[in-house]
Amino acid sequence: MGVGTLLLGIDIGGTTTTFGLVTPEGEILARGEIPTLPDRPADDLVERICSGVTKLCAGHPDKVPAGVGVGAPNANHHRGTVENPPNLAWGGSVDLAALFRQRFPGRPVVVTNDANAAALGEQCYGGGRGMRDLIVITLGTGVGSGIIANGELLVGASGFAGELGHTTVDPGGRHCACGKRGCLETYVSAPGLCRTVLSLLADRRDETPLRRIPPARLTAHDVYLAARDGDPVARAAFAETGRILGMKLADAVAHTSPEAIFLTGGLAAAGDLLLLPARRSLEEFLFPVYRKSVRLLLSEIPAGDGAILGAAALVLSRTGR
Amino acid sequence: MGVGTLLLGIDIGGTTTTFGLVTPEGEILARGEIPTLPDRPADDLVERICSGVTKLCAGHPDKVPAGVGVGAPNANHHRGTVENPPNLAWGGSVDLAALFRQRFPGRPVVVTNDANAAALGEQCYGGGRGMRDLIVITLGTGVGSGIIANGELLVGASGFAGELGHTTVDPGGRHCACGKRGCLETYVSAPGLCRTVLSLLADRRDETPLRRIPPARLTAHDVYLAARDGDPVARAAFAETGRILGMKLADAVAHTSPEAIFLTGGLAAAGDLLLLPARRSLEEFLFPVYRKSVRLLLSEIPAGDGAILGAAALVLSRTGR
Repeated sequence: MGVGTLLLGIDIGGTTTTFGLVTPEGEILARGEIPTLPDRPADDLVERICSGVTKLCAGHPDKVPAGVGVGAPNANHHRGTVENPPNLAWGGSVDLAALFRQRFPGRPVVVTNDANAAALGEQCYGGGRGMRDLIVITLGTGVGSGIIANGELLVGASGFAGELGHTTVDPGGRHCACGKRGCLETYVSAPGLCRTVLSLLADRRDETPLRRIPPARLTAHDVYLAARDGDPVARAAFAETGRILGMKLADAVAHTSPEAIFLTGGLAAAGDLLLLPARRSLEEFLFPVYRKSVRLLLSEIPAGDGAILGAAALVLSRTGR
Repeated sequence: MGVGTLLLGIDIGGTTTTFGLVTPEGEILARGEIPTLPDRPADDLVERICSGVTKLCAGHPDKVPAGVGVGAPNANHHRGTVENPPNLAWGGSVDLAALFRQRFPGRPVVVTNDANAAALGEQCYGGGRGMRDLIVITLGTGVGSGIIANGELLVGASGFAGELGHTTVDPGGRHCACGKRGCLETYVSAPGLCRTVLSLLADRRDETPLRRIPPARLTAHDVYLAARDGDPVARAAFAETGRILGMKLADAVAHTSPEAIFLTGGLAAAGDLLLLPARRSLEEFLFPVYRKSVRLLLSEIPAGDGAILGAAALVLSRTGR
């Protein structure tokens, strides 16, 4: 694939789908955004993405996408399918790669998990440049992860490798949307942070403005604002979230021993409130041979660009530069 | 490396060191065993290994080893060093690769962690033939692990990847030799099984012959014999060991998604006593997309051969066939 050829990177989220025309060097020349409308079938979304892309390309008449990379929830890297997505009414299994290949005949189409795409984006265009071993953790409504080891994205025998959000923190712990209990996602996602606030409100007696927000309306942003204002419960919630995240990242290091772990997603925007306790806990729980060797960092890719760039990087990683 | 060329596989253990002349097809033509004598320096051991090898080669006059693979505790795959081995009085860091290169000039010498060697052995010559993603867990005095993903041994940025024995089961749990608390090794190793027996003896009131053995003398073999005779405490100890092992292996699957996980080492010899509860727990704790896709098996390599074969496979994996 020659330099100057544009790639189409697509990020399908539960609420919003974004896409962009990306140079192989990682510059997003044009971008679009549409509502995912998760109650409609997959064809409908693909159709609307393609209309949007046609409009983008109209501004770049000689630049048709040379390849298409798609990051999507519950995507199977081997099969190019999206399987039982919890937030999309697409049913059991949708062959997303085939749907895009119909629209872009003869072009490479690669579909992967959105967090895998983010990991490739970080390695190609972010803080992970030059690294052969890294992990990206996406902290949002859920917790996703993409693992790069020996220079390559790990997809595993199933095509679903890298689901650290569903490793177990406490086998008798919080109920998870996946049907298990005590998954990491129930503690260190945005809703997990709010659950920790509720648990602290139950345990403690101190006054805090967080007691005046109905639990159904409490958001991670409320907790962030309270913590920024010095609220002890909000700060304790971030500290506990960081402690659990660090503990499980130490487990992740004992698997693939990365050079760095990058945090991205809405909750990562809390910065030091989360990063400092997470770093302390990571170091504490690391097996001694790994201590002082792993950096826990915020992603260097601007919020919103990660998945588009990653999906584009996915095409490059599959086709070679 | 041509077929018919012999490889030297060496397995350095805390008590015994074994070595063998291995064909590239995985046949051990001749083998030797010496005491490690852990209180003496590394040079002394290397000297004695080389004397032993000279004797072995005397029976195969035209067959000098074409390459040397060494599996050793706390070995760093990148540096070829053994660093702070807990059971060997070798001090901080010994350049084991260099010591062997002096004795075998011009031959490839590769040093890795003993569990990594076992994983390569399983992939080359055991039940993992043809698999691109697998994990080998060694259950003995400690718990080691070797991870193969995308067809390659994972060594990580540090050279120490794959230390699942020191992932955390319970952050406030049992004290571990590594200085941390609640490491997997403190529950699912041979001594871990005995610790679980003591904990059960504290909790329960039933009579069992295990109450008549002083804790300092209790061995995993005692527990095995009692369990085989139907002793409920011994059986409960194996069930609990399997439950914890399965839970943490489910975490491992969420990282690299292997096709199979192989158990080896002394405790694996307990067979179904451990395997059945471990399989049940693995399946229970697996994130749903992985269910029914991962096999938990006993190693197909005869006990005692694994590390020699693995160390030989290590040379092949480094030099190409």
